[in-house]
This record gives sequence, structure tokens and C-alpha cells, in this order.
Amino acid sequence: MEAITQLSYALDTFYFLVSGALVMWMAAGFAMLEAGLVRAKNTAEILTKNVALFAIACIMYMLMGYNIMYAGDGNGYIPALDLSFMFGGDNSVEDVLASKGEVYYSGMSDFFFQVVFVATAMSIVSGAVAERMKLWAFLVFAVVMTGVIYPLQGYWKWGGGFLDAAGFNDFAGSGVVHLCGTSAALAGVILLGARKGKYTADGRVNAIPGANMPLATLGMFILWLGWFGFNGGSELVLSNIEEANAVAAVFVNTNAAAGGVVAALLTARALFGKADLTMTLNGALAGLVAITAEPLAPTPLWATLVGAIGGILVVFSIITMDKLKIDDPVGAISVHGVVGMWGLIAVPFSNTEANFGAQLLGLGVIFAWTFMASFLVWLVLKAVMGIRVSAEEEYEGVDLGECALEAYPEFTGSRGSGL
Amino acid sequence: MEAITQLSYALDTFYFLVSGALVMWMAAGFAMLEAGLVRAKNTAEILTKNVALFAIACIMYMLMGYNIMYAGDGNGYIPALDLSFMFGGDNSVEDVLASKGEVYYSGMSDFFFQVVFVATAMSIVSGAVAERMKLWAFLVFAVVMTGVIYPLQGYWKWGGGFLDAAGFNDFAGSGVVHLCGTSAALAGVILLGARKGKYTADGRVNAIPGANMPLATLGMFILWLGWFGFNGGSELVLSNIEEANAVAAVFVNTNAAAGGVVAALLTARALFGKADLTMTLNGALAGLVAITAEPLAPTPLWATLVGAIGGILVVFSIITMDKLKIDDPVGAISVHGVVGMWGLIAVPFSNTEANFGAQLLGLGVIFAWTFMASFLVWLVLKAVMGIRVSAEEEYEGVDLGECALEAYPEFTGSRGSGL
Amino acid sequence: MEAITQLSYALDTFYFLVSGALVMWMAAGFAMLEAGLVRAKNTAEILTKNVALFAIACIMYMLMGYNIMYAGDGNGYIPALDLSFMFGGDNSVEDVLASKGEVYYSGMSDFFFQVVFVATAMSIVSGAVAERMKLWAFLVFAVVMTGVIYPLQGYWKWGGGFLDAAGFNDFAGSGVVHLCGTSAALAGVILLGARKGKYTADGRVNAIPGANMPLATLGMFILWLGWFGFNGGSELVLSNIEEANAVAAVFVNTNAAAGGVVAALLTARALFGKADLTMTLNGALAGLVAITAEPLAPTPLWATLVGAIGGILVVFSIITMDKLKIDDPVGAISVHGVVGMWGLIAVPFSNTEANFGAQLLGLGVIFAWTFMASFLVWLVLKAVMGIRVSAEEEYEGVDLGECALEAYPEFTGSRGSGL
Repeated sequence: MEAITQLSYALDTFYFLVSGALVMWMAAGFAMLEAGLVRAKNTAEILTKNVALFAIACIMYMLMGYNIMYAGDGNGYIPALDLSFMFGGDNSVEDVLASKGEVYYSGMSDFFFQVVFVATAMSIVSGAVAERMKLWAFLVFAVVMTGVIYPLQGYWKWGGGFLDAAGFNDFAGSGVVHLCGTSAALAGVILLGARKGKYTADGRVNAIPGANMPLATLGMFILWLGWFGFNGGSELVLSNIEEANAVAAVFVNTNAAAGGVVAALLTARALFGKADLTMTLNGALAGLVAITAEPLAPTPLWATLVGAIGGILVVFSIITMDKLKIDDPVGAISVHGVVGMWGLIAVPFSNTEANFGAQLLGLGVIFAWTFMASFLVWLVLKAVMGIRVSAEEEYEGVDLGECALEAYPEFTGSRGSGL
Repeated sequence: MEAITQLSYALDTFYFLVSGALVMWMAAGFAMLEAGLVRAKNTAEILTKNVALFAIACIMYMLMGYNIMYAGDGNGYIPALDLSFMFGGDNSVEDVLASKGEVYYSGMSDFFFQVVFVATAMSIVSGAVAERMKLWAFLVFAVVMTGVIYPLQGYWKWGGGFLDAAGFNDFAGSGVVHLCGTSAALAGVILLGARKGKYTADGRVNAIPGANMPLATLGMFILWLGWFGFNGGSELVLSNIEEANAVAAVFVNTNAAAGGVVAALLTARALFGKADLTMTLNGALAGLVAITAEPLAPTPLWATLVGAIGGILVVFSIITMDKLKIDDPVGAISVHGVVGMWGLIAVPFSNTEANFGAQLLGLGVIFAWTFMASFLVWLVLKAVMGIRVSAEEEYEGVDLGECALEAYPEFTGSRGSGL
Repeated sequence: MEAITQLSYALDTFYFLVSGALVMWMAAGFAMLEAGLVRAKNTAEILTKNVALFAIACIMYMLMGYNIMYAGDGNGYIPALDLSFMFGGDNSVEDVLASKGEVYYSGMSDFFFQVVFVATAMSIVSGAVAERMKLWAFLVFAVVMTGVIYPLQGYWKWGGGFLDAAGFNDFAGSGVVHLCGTSAALAGVILLGARKGKYTADGRVNAIPGANMPLATLGMFILWLGWFGFNGGSELVLSNIEEANAVAAVFVNTNAAAGGVVAALLTARALFGKADLTMTLNGALAGLVAITAEPLAPTPLWATLVGAIGGILVVFSIITMDKLKIDDPVGAISVHGVVGMWGLIAVPFSNTEANFGAQLLGLGVIFAWTFMASFLVWLVLKAVMGIRVSAEEEYEGVDLGECALEAYPEFTGSRGSGL
């Protein structure tokens, strides 16, 4: 029996590590998606933000975030802070065997899986504030977001806090990750204002096309692939028949993205008469966000429908955001926020143990906390160092101002500059 | 013993899911390869096709394709149709344990692995018909191909139908996937005709260079990586010494791609005097396609030679296709079809259980069925909605006509338009 | 017990194969990184080099390299050459069971894991000699490097040779892979000379910006992802609690890259006043190289510091290389060589079984052997076929001269040519 326990522990640990590696890959997905959807002159800066935010997330979550979120003790609202993770520690062989299956994978593999989730939440922010936010203000915000704001609400649900006790269901984080990231982004966008030229005085909305659509498409595919780890790893156990079946069902249902693609493609065609690639990409992501709150209970058909509704929602949401003059260059608020809320609300339709009241409670608490805390931090940053680049820098492109280099120095001679 | 069975089931399921995720990644590979090899003005549309076809494949295979291909009953020619997969269903713990090892992985993981194969077959089509086919006609074809045409011939071999009974060998699908996809593509290309300007009245062939070679190279690398799942997962079992050895041998032999690279590079240098990157990329893919019919039996050296012959074949095939005025912008027919046939024929050289007669039978049946069924569907589409864009739209680029956006709006000012 | 042994063997083999697939993916990472950091006119050629070198590494390591490195017998300096691997051979079920756990994974999976390491070493060379080395001379060098030079020093350490006996520690290859690749590159760079226009007669250094920063960033992310396989797989066993904990710790510590990112970003800002994206990317890679010699013993905090020191070092090293007029277009010598040495020297700080004397011995031997052997090979190549393209070809771009095609034929009309 001991040999089986050892092998089972190894398999569950490996499953966690492979899942974590897939989610880490999503950092590249966000970087490519966002780099493809902004203009050439702002590309190097958004790349820098994406690389740096991932690094900051890894460091801050190691130093304090992971401890806050999974502290073990605490009263359900305030975690018991213990900053020991950075000094290591893992499960001893004796402890694991004595736990009779309670401890069934390496604590280090758990950290590795969790740390990439906080980076995902932060990646959502970078897209929404693209093309006009100061690099260093953004990075300071990333420190607070990944060290404190995200981990605290994560504790309330996944750390066994009061939202978990209230029966709130969120399998892999439509709320804890995607709505949280969006709420922080929305606070920033409101304080930041729209890009110059996006909304004219007479009420028109100017489309500002992204510079590199293959890059954006690559980013979407990377995210789709990574999402199998994001949702698939969130079952947390694999090593017996029942759990293996569950993980496999989650993988299949994550293809709800397919429903999002087809629905967004058809909705855009109905509205605009053309096959809009950007909307199609956002449709895929919307399908993924929608199914993330409950990818286990639905049948494959139902999962596809949940994704498809997400795909329709995202098209109308993007149009609505522009009417509200909420300028979000990559559509992140619609994809991760609006559809994230749909994902949370859709849970009780397939999972009979969930209820709408608890879902709305979770949704409201995550939004309220993250939005208000983030708003405060952005406000302080605005006062202390400023959060928006100068009008001249915005016109010239933030790449030159912030990074002193161009993303494509040889490609944009005739049409690129100052577009 | 029960605990071992449970763990073994979990490991085989996980192996299937990881393999399936790698094959899913090939969808991104095809998208990047094709986007890199077309002109800038047709890039957004080919991206849209690739994203949409993957989504359609996921949905149609869930609704009916998987049921057709693995229906279980049927007479070997006509499957017993049962559309229950979309409503879920997986293996119960009791059934698995009672089966004494017959059922050794999750049915859901099997679907997840199989669904990405049909998408691969369909991806082959998009490249061959690039730069002049109507988007929506292509997508309607994708519905029929992934819902019916591919699954039926898949049933004949992998579903235990008459080709399987006849002793036809096709480990991971040089025939069932690659030749099938090519046959559908060839039918479309013949009805569609060549791109304007590709072949001149006086018999010259104009090379039409792809717009983005790093993207095409990335696509090739993605496909190479994904192929470890494609071939490696097709062993279907991993959980004992003999099977683990087999899976490892398949991984090693999949590097037959290396033989294809070197052979194509040297062949192209002998013919053209230069190191042709496009031919080198196609050489890698040819090596992969060639070894796919039998990646288990050969020694590493023999596998490399099989790949190398594929790499030589692909160069001569691409030249020959142009002489025949079969216009295939990315070389898909040569890579997946001509070399796919070589792969099928090469099986008996290393696998003593295979025979040339059965290989030729399988080759002939797959080609005949897929080509004729596809030809009919393309013909209907041509009559009903048209399959070719207008000459003006072809000149301006299908991106503007079909998608109303440009793939690289800032890069192509001076040389791109109307090339 | 036998069933457990079988399952355990399967899990360890699968862990090796997944790790190997991740490392294979690094070939794409190097290709994208280097293609992004050179000028448009030299992009297709560097892509061709990267694809071809990977193929050559696969073939040469199969034919002889693997046999040299892991020959089993030999006197610790000279391996016992036995060229049987290419003809196959794997572990029989009986032998594995009789070995009582000594043989715990498939020999084929071991080859698959090892072969991608030699490709990594060779990839380091292609970046350093970019934009002026002849393609075919480079490929001939790749044959010797992957067939003989790398495997011999690999034998001295990982094959159980005299460096291993001397107590030299190098977990996943800061020395055996990264310093080795760099030493070969340095010999080539010295014989080759700097690119035209890089260093002016009056002592100025001209920055030559890379053409495609998103591509370079993608390459970095691919490398970061692949490194989890590179370091994580190098534990070699996973299938019990202690080993699973070790593999998980290695995954977490590989995020030392985060320390490299933040340190390089801040160092560059302190020196240049801007957030230099190229330095940030090199910082990530430096963090990865630095931790590779010992990713198991450190705490997460210590690993991050080792990476951070690597990130600072790489910035100063790149500046210093330019002062020495060692022209390395992608910074490979600094990232893999200078930081690789730091990684080796850092081992005894966290691993109490290591000592500085043995580390310096290993460092010196690897450098001396690889540099001298490579220098000789480059010298012969220079005499026989020449290693540098003509001044005219360098000005026009090596793509046209070597590959007869352009990487971005539609993008570089107005500013690209002759830059």
C-alpha cells in the first residue's frame, strides 16, 4: 500500500506540474494577443509590461501572496499571515504516508500551479490599459495586486474563507481570476481615460486596428492550449478512476471555446456583414472564460452552449463598452469581466449543488473588493507618480518614451508613425 | 490490485490528455504556417478559416463524427449511428474494475484525443485552397468534412471496419488523417483553379512568396512538437514496461522529421543552388507525415531514412504540381498527400505484419471515398453559393472582402497592396 | 510488486518524454529569439540555420553522439565507442524486472531527453555568429559539434567520466550545455570578426536593432516554458514522494527567471534611464541559465537571488563585450557563457556537497576543451570553404545570398534594405 501511495503522490504531483506549465504558457498568450492588438508604436512597451508583470507575480506571490491565500488559519475574512514559503518547505515522506491520502501531492507543485493564476489575473489588466498607461506606474500596481489584492479575495474562496463557506462555486476562477483581474483593470481604465482619437467630440467611435493579427491569433491559440491546464489542473486530483474521468471531462468541456468562436463569428456577421477576426478571437476567449466557473458538471453539448452564449455576449459587450466610452484596446473587460459574470451565473444550471444567491454574493464581493482596493491604489499612483503618459508621448508611441526602442524598426516607415 | 488498476487507468488517461493537448496545439501550427506562406493581403482570412475550422471540427465531431467513427456496432461499411456522446457519459468505476483491464482509460479522454485529429485533416484543406476560396463556402465544407466524410473512412480503419479487417496498417494516420485531408483539398483545388498570375499563358510559373517566414517557421516547429502527441498518443496505452518502451520508441522515431529537413535542404540546394527555407520547412513536415503510418517498428536509423525519402519526394512533388498547374500555395498536397502515400507504402519494409496489398487497398479506398465525396460537396457549394471570390476581391486581397480588416495595417504601405 | 514496478517505469518514462518534448520546444524558442533580434534582411537565413541545426543534432547524436556520451565503459577520459544506438534496442520487460529498480525508465526516452540538450548547445552558437557567417560552414560545424565536441565533454560529467569523479556539480547543464555552447560560439566569433558598421574606427558602438521584438519576446517565453523540462527532467526520477518533491522544487526554482527579469529591468533603467526590452528578455534567460547548475538545493528566495544576480551580470557583460569588440548580435555569450559560469560558481552556496575547487575545474575543462576543439574546426573551415560571407552579401543581407528569398518581402520596402 505504501508503494501505491508513493506512486499516486508522484502522479498527482506531475499532473499539477504539467498543468502549471500549461498555465505559465498563458503568459506568452496574453503577451502575443495584446502585442498583436495594439499599434506598432506601442508594442515593445506592452511586451515589456507582460514580461515584467509575470516576473513580479512570481516574486510577490512567493514572498507573501501564496501565504495570504492559503494560510490555513485565519477567521475566514482575515488570513493568518505566515511568510515562511519563501524559505522553502515541502512534505516529508513520513508526513505524507501518515496522512493516509490527505496530503497527496507536493506543496511545491501546488505553489507552482497557483502562482501562474495570479499572473493570469494581472495579464488581464495590461491589455485594458494599453497604449497610454505609464510603464512604471503599472508595475507598481502589479506589486500590490499580486501581493495583496488578488490573494485576499482568493483566500475568501479557494483558501477556505467566508465565500467558500457561503456555498459560492467557482471551479477554476471565472470570478477569482477573471472577474478579479477585470475589476482591477476597470478601475484603472476609468481613472486613465480613453486613448486620444478613440472617441470624437461628435460621438463617433474610431476603430484603431491592431498591428499584427497573426500575433493576436497565436496568442488566442496559446491561451486555449494553456486553458486545459487552467481548468484541467483545477480538479486537483487525478490518480483514481473517478478523478481521471473528471479531469478528462473538464478537458473536453474546455472546448466550450468552440461554441464561443462560432457564436461570435455568426453574431459579428449578422451585425457587420463580415467575418470579424478580432471578434472571433474574443469569442474563443469568451467561451473559455464562461466555462471556467463550472467545467465539470455540464455535458459536452451544454458546455458548448455556455461557451456560445459567452461568444454572443462578448460581441454586444464590446459594442456597449464603446458606447459608454470605456476604452479597452483588447476587449479584456468584456471577455474576462462580463463573460466571467455570465460564467458564475451559469453554474447552477448544470451543478445542482450551486445556487444563484451564493453565486451573486461571490460575484459582488470579488468585484467590490477588487474594484475599490484597486481604485484606491491607482488613485495614489496617479497622485504620486502619474499614471498616464504625456499627450506627446502617446502620439509618438510609448515604445520610444518608455523603452527607447521600436518593436518593428524596419516595417513601419511609410504608414506607421503617428497613426 | 484494485488500487493498481485505478492508478494505471489514471496514468493512461493523463497520457491521452497530454497527447491530445499537444495535437490541439497543431491547430496553431497550421494557422501560423499558412499565415506565413500567403501574401499579407490574404492573411487575416486564412487565420479566420483556421480558427473557425477548429471550432467547427470540435462541435461537429461531438455532435456526430465521433459517434460515426467509433460507433462500436455496424457492418464494417456502414456504422451504427448513435448520437449520445453529446449528452456525456463516461466509464463508471465499477465497470472499469469489472472489465479487468479492457477499459483502461476515460472515454472522455479518448474523445479529446480523437477530436484534434479531425481538425488536423481539415487544416490541410485550408492551406491548399488559400488566397482565392470564399470563406463561408469553406466553412460549410468543414461542417460536412468533419461531421461525415472524415469520420466514415475513419470508421473503416480505426473504428474496426473493413479496412482494418483487411489488414491495412496506419498507426497514426498517414492515410486516415493526412491523405484524407489532402484528397478533400485536391478536389477543391481542381474545381477552384489556380490563383491569378500564378501560371502565365506562355507556360511560366511565377513564385508567389509568403509574407512572413518566421511565422511559417514557427508553424513548422509547433507541428513538430504536436506530432509527438499525434504519434506518441496513438500507441493508446502507456502503463506497463512494454507499452512505455513502445511510446518512447515512437517519440524517438517521430524525429524522422530530421531526415526530412536534411534531405529537402540538400535536394533544394542541388536543384536550385540555394538553401530554400520553404522547402526545408516542408521537408520537416514530410518527414513527419512519412513516419506517421508506422513510427513504432523501425529502428531510429530506418525512421530517419523514411523521413529523408519523404523530404526528397516533397521537393520533386512540389515542382511537379506546378507543372500540372495544381496551385497549392503552401504545398499541402505534396506534404500530406504524396508523402502520406509514401508513408503507407513504407510500412511493410519495417513492420513484418503488414503487406503491400492491404496498404494499397487502404490508400485507394481513402483517396477514392474522400475525393469523390468532397468533389460532390464542393460542386454543390459552387452551384449554390460559389466557391471562388471575385477577380477584383482576389486582386485587392480576401482580407478586406471577407473580414473587413487587414492583418498588418501598418506594414504593407509601399509594397504590399495588389502584389 | 511487479505491477508497481511496471507502472512506476511507465510514469518515469512518461515524465522523461514530456520533459523532452518541452526541451525540444526550446529549438523553436531559439529560432524565434534570434529571428527577432537580427535585421529583416538576415532573418530567413537564421531561421534556416536553426531548423537545420536541430535536424543535424538529432541525426548526429543518434549516429554517434549518444554513444560517446553514455557509452557506459571507457576510462573516464576516452569513452568506449559503440555505435549500436541507431539500430535500436530498448529494455526488455525481464531485464527491467530483474534489475530491481536499477533500470527504471525506457532507454529510448533517455535518448529523447538527451538529444534535445545537444541541440540547445548548438542553438547558442547560431545567435552569436548571426548576420555574417556562411550557412554551409555553420552546418558543417554543427555536424562536428553535435557528433563529437559536445558529447565528449558531456561524457566527462554526465557519462560518469573524470569531471563527475572529481565532484563537479552541474545539475542540468549551466556548464555542460550552456558554457559548452558559448565556448564554441566564442571561438567562431573571434575568427569571424564583427559585423560591418558595428564598431566604428573612432571607437563608437552602433546599436543594430532587431527587426521584430514580439518574435524575440515569444522566443524568450518559449525558452522559459521549455526550461521546466530542461531542469525538471534532469532530476531523472519522479515516481516516489521524495523524488516528486524534488521535481516540484526544481520547477519552482526555475522561476529564478523572474529574479533575472526584475534585476535586468532595474539595472538597465539605472544605466540607460529606460525599460530596455532586449535587456529584460536577456535577464529572464540569464536567470534561467544561472539556476540550471543547481535548481534543487536552494529555497525559492535563494533561487530568485541567484537569478537576479544573473540578470545584473548579463547587462554589464553585454556592455563589456561591446567594449572588447566581441560582436554577438543576440547577447548569447553573455547570457549562456558569463552567466553559465556564475551558475556553476553559485552551486556551493546552496548545495553543501559541492565545492568551489571542483566547480572551477569543471568550468575550466569544459571551456578549454570546447574552445580549443571548436577553434580548430572553425580554422579548418575558414581555410577550406571560408566562414564569412562577402562584404557585398553582408550589405545586401544573407537571406538573398544564402536562401534566395526574403523573410518579409512585403514589409521592408522603404526602410529595410541595406540598413
